[in-house]
Amino acid sequence: MSRSLLAPANIAILGLGLMGGSLAMALRGHCARLVGVDQDPAVVRLALERHIVDAAATDPSSLLAEADLVILAVPVRASLDWLGRLPELHPEPAVVMDLGSTKRAVLAAMAALPGRFDPLGGHPMCGKAEGSLRNAEAGLFVAAPFALSALPRTTPHARQLALEMVACTGAHPLWLEAAQHDRWVAATSHLPHLLATALVLSTSPETAPLAGPGFRSTSRLAAGFAEMKTDIFATNRLPVLEALARFRQQLDIIEAALRDSDLDTLQQLFALGAEQRQAYLAEKP
Amino acid sequence: MSRSLLAPANIAILGLGLMGGSLAMALRGHCARLVGVDQDPAVVRLALERHIVDAAATDPSSLLAEADLVILAVPVRASLDWLGRLPELHPEPAVVMDLGSTKRAVLAAMAALPGRFDPLGGHPMCGKAEGSLRNAEAGLFVAAPFALSALPRTTPHARQLALEMVACTGAHPLWLEAAQHDRWVAATSHLPHLLATALVLSTSPETAPLAGPGFRSTSRLAAGFAEMKTDIFATNRLPVLEALARFRQQLDIIEAALRDSDLDTLQQLFALGAEQRQAYLAEKP
Repeated sequence: MSRSLLAPANIAILGLGLMGGSLAMALRGHCARLVGVDQDPAVVRLALERHIVDAAATDPSSLLAEADLVILAVPVRASLDWLGRLPELHPEPAVVMDLGSTKRAVLAAMAALPGRFDPLGGHPMCGKAEGSLRNAEAGLFVAAPFALSALPRTTPHARQLALEMVACTGAHPLWLEAAQHDRWVAATSHLPHLLATALVLSTSPETAPLAGPGFRSTSRLAAGFAEMKTDIFATNRLPVLEALARFRQQLDIIEAALRDSDLDTLQQLFALGAEQRQAYLAEKP
Repeated sequence: MSRSLLAPANIAILGLGLMGGSLAMALRGHCARLVGVDQDPAVVRLALERHIVDAAATDPSSLLAEADLVILAVPVRASLDWLGRLPELHPEPAVVMDLGSTKRAVLAAMAALPGRFDPLGGHPMCGKAEGSLRNAEAGLFVAAPFALSALPRTTPHARQLALEMVACTGAHPLWLEAAQHDRWVAATSHLPHLLATALVLSTSPETAPLAGPGFRSTSRLAAGFAEMKTDIFATNRLPVLEALARFRQQLDIIEAALRDSDLDTLQQLFALGAEQRQAYLAEKP
């Protein structure tokens, strides 16, 4: 793929956390100019010290106006706020993209932008146990699915620029309708977050000496990011409740087999789960 | 610690899978003689080819009789079968230990052994995604908790031999009463297995393109070992049902907050879960 749109681009990233910082590192040297905005002065200093961006500030007004690609790399509800302020901060045409974990609410806010903006949604399916710029790395997106959601108004130019940016990170682009995206991540990501949190909250501290790698793995998503998670659930309530209802159906079946000491059924369920997980993960792109 | 009891020991391991095979590799060279029994002739051949044991066979009768430490490294219900056959297979005194995932049922069967046997329970809290001798390694137990459960009849000799064996593997010994062990592992291990299986069974295959490391981690325990899992649940039914009831209470609280769009409560629950997980894993020995 030619990099004809990305190479001359002036890119502004709003939010220099794990995702925004890693994206900046991946794009560095592949675009004409890269600037960053973060509300935390220490993060701005670190980004400048490490030459992660050409310029950075806590105040977006001086940096944002010249960008022809604006990327929102903040929790979903902060993206909604930024989209509300964008018309006053940015008087010129620009492609606008987000990296948020849910897509319907963001695309609805994007649809309300003035006509000079060319918006689309994005969601790279990767992460780390620890957030923040200090843990950012250029390779974070390599081989990860990168969901992209277009609006009816999204131009071929914006689509092409987004694809070039995704290719530059090493991720796999995947175009999805926003509602479909939100239903799918409710099952693959948001429900697992709820289960991990409920597991931790239900486990007595005295049992810790017997916690092994299984507990660590199953509970991993309970770690950190309380604000980001709350934004996710605030903007994906019904799909998560539906995924949770499907989970409860299966849990009820397993519990009934256990309660009845129906070991044949229990073993069949375990065997089916093992088989389905293997097939499921093999289907990944 | 001196290795005065382990060095002269003649050890028989029944079951040369991931656990038995790894234990043999860890003990190799640290005891006088090491023999293995496995029902699968291919496993016996592999163990001999790789010099994992001094002798191996599918038939225990020739190998078992001279062992002064017999280690049961098979699923729990197979251990119960072996304990029933041991009096006819082994005419001499011996220390008998198991590596099973639950302890009450095994210790009850051990209590019924003739007086020449000196039994105790063991449970190394480690594993791998893939079982079998091919995946065994001497380092499997390093830094893992190794639960030990004594019976009233267990002698200081058996306790000391078990401690030397655990030290030789690099694991941390932890003496626990069998009922307490079973309640704790119901929470730290068995419940996570149920949740992982229910998660996989409730997830539609079409969502696979958006499954990331979070789904992989939360569902990891759904993989493999259906027979071993069934044995675990068959012998730890009530403690698992109790742990599941505690999990459902927490899940109900989270679901209610989500249903009511009570985002403050939701964020507090996520923050509490993150904090409790960190404190919990920091408490590990």
